[in-house]
Amino acid sequence: MPVYRLDIAYDGTDFRGYAEQRGQRTVQEVLEEALARAMGPVATAVAGRTDAGVHAARQVVSVVAERPTDIERLKRSLQRLLPVDVSVLDCVEEEVGFDARFSASSRTYRYYVLNRPVPDPLLRRTTWHVPRPLDRGAMNAAASHFVGRHDFSSLCRRNEGRSMVREVLLAGWREVEQGLLCFEVTATSFCHQMIRSMVALTVEVGRGRIDPEEVPGILVAEDRNAARGAAPPHGLVLWDVRY
Amino acid sequence: MPVYRLDIAYDGTDFRGYAEQRGQRTVQEVLEEALARAMGPVATAVAGRTDAGVHAARQVVSVVAERPTDIERLKRSLQRLLPVDVSVLDCVEEEVGFDARFSASSRTYRYYVLNRPVPDPLLRRTTWHVPRPLDRGAMNAAASHFVGRHDFSSLCRRNEGRSMVREVLLAGWREVEQGLLCFEVTATSFCHQMIRSMVALTVEVGRGRIDPEEVPGILVAEDRNAARGAAPPHGLVLWDVRY
Repeated sequence: MPVYRLDIAYDGTDFRGYAEQRGQRTVQEVLEEALARAMGPVATAVAGRTDAGVHAARQVVSVVAERPTDIERLKRSLQRLLPVDVSVLDCVEEEVGFDARFSASSRTYRYYVLNRPVPDPLLRRTTWHVPRPLDRGAMNAAASHFVGRHDFSSLCRRNEGRSMVREVLLAGWREVEQGLLCFEVTATSFCHQMIRSMVALTVEVGRGRIDPEEVPGILVAEDRNAARGAAPPHGLVLWDVRY
Repeated sequence: MPVYRLDIAYDGTDFRGYAEQRGQRTVQEVLEEALARAMGPVATAVAGRTDAGVHAARQVVSVVAERPTDIERLKRSLQRLLPVDVSVLDCVEEEVGFDARFSASSRTYRYYVLNRPVPDPLLRRTTWHVPRPLDRGAMNAAASHFVGRHDFSSLCRRNEGRSMVREVLLAGWREVEQGLLCFEVTATSFCHQMIRSMVALTVEVGRGRIDPEEVPGILVAEDRNAARGAAPPHGLVLWDVRY
């Protein structure tokens, strides 16, 4: 059975996340409905199960179909069938065995903080507004402790019996324009709420409430209560997936 | 009576434009309602009467009040009273006689075109999606003809008896990131639909349907039918006002 790789983008504002939930509007549901109309029944896998309100600049979905399809036609059909808050960026045929989730070697997310005294109405759906000035140097000192292989239990929602050990390849804050901060993090994979918890923790450091050197102790505690909760979802974007 | 200058930003998506219209949600209406609550009855004037769907990164409103008010308190009250799609960026007291409309020396607008094959869900409220590649060199050759003092009747909605002569100080297209084009135009003032008509016309040039050298003839015709209509409002942002 042929396998296709779909690269999609979405505005997470009006979705209850990626993964299907009965009775809720999810990206998976609207995508699979469009796929079923365009090419009949399919089975899908996804690179990143984004939470409610989280966006994607590039999410990858693998689609196992019952029969081959013309890729250009599929792309056009999907674009016509999908709502305005989901777009198909690319569609290619892949080798049998390709799986968007298990074949991925790394995921990159970005989190945007608007660090200006006043909120920006045009950025309200895609940034977390933090009015008081943040110390970006301290935030980067804190973020540097995330890099490497660690047990991230302190920064993740518990998931009975599952390992929280993850390998972070890159983590840091930069200023993309005056007062607009971006946290970019790449890891082989993430556990649930890990990125938003990293953001909440480093923002607390940026506010001067935690010293960057307390971060290793918080990680070692392997205790969710040692951290600072999770930043709101709407600042988070799944940016890229590598295979 | 004291005069205040308010600099505001708004997401125009859910407004029927700036200027009050009975029974419609307009920026003027929500702003004056918040001002009335914060400081009693006021009279306002505005730098740019933006159309339905047009945004503002910086709009200027002058407010004549019956009595003086504490500026910091006013700013905080307004931010609390205004809906999430309007923000107060700045508030200062001005000299008596200051009028946001008549004292302005120039206005700058930006218009964003997403020139990629596929729409971007996160940019759908703030860019016009033009899928086919545009020739930016030709668009700038066309835009250069707007600069200077001209009768812009061909690019404006008729307004019985009013002059359409305007002075454009600067007009040009640039690529702000891959596939995201920005038209920036500064003039002493604009007539109705002038910028969106400039955008529609230069985009037609970028598509190769009009030669840049036809633009002077279109202007000289002083006939709305000689142009190419107006680009959609949601790509347009009032960017700055000079005094």
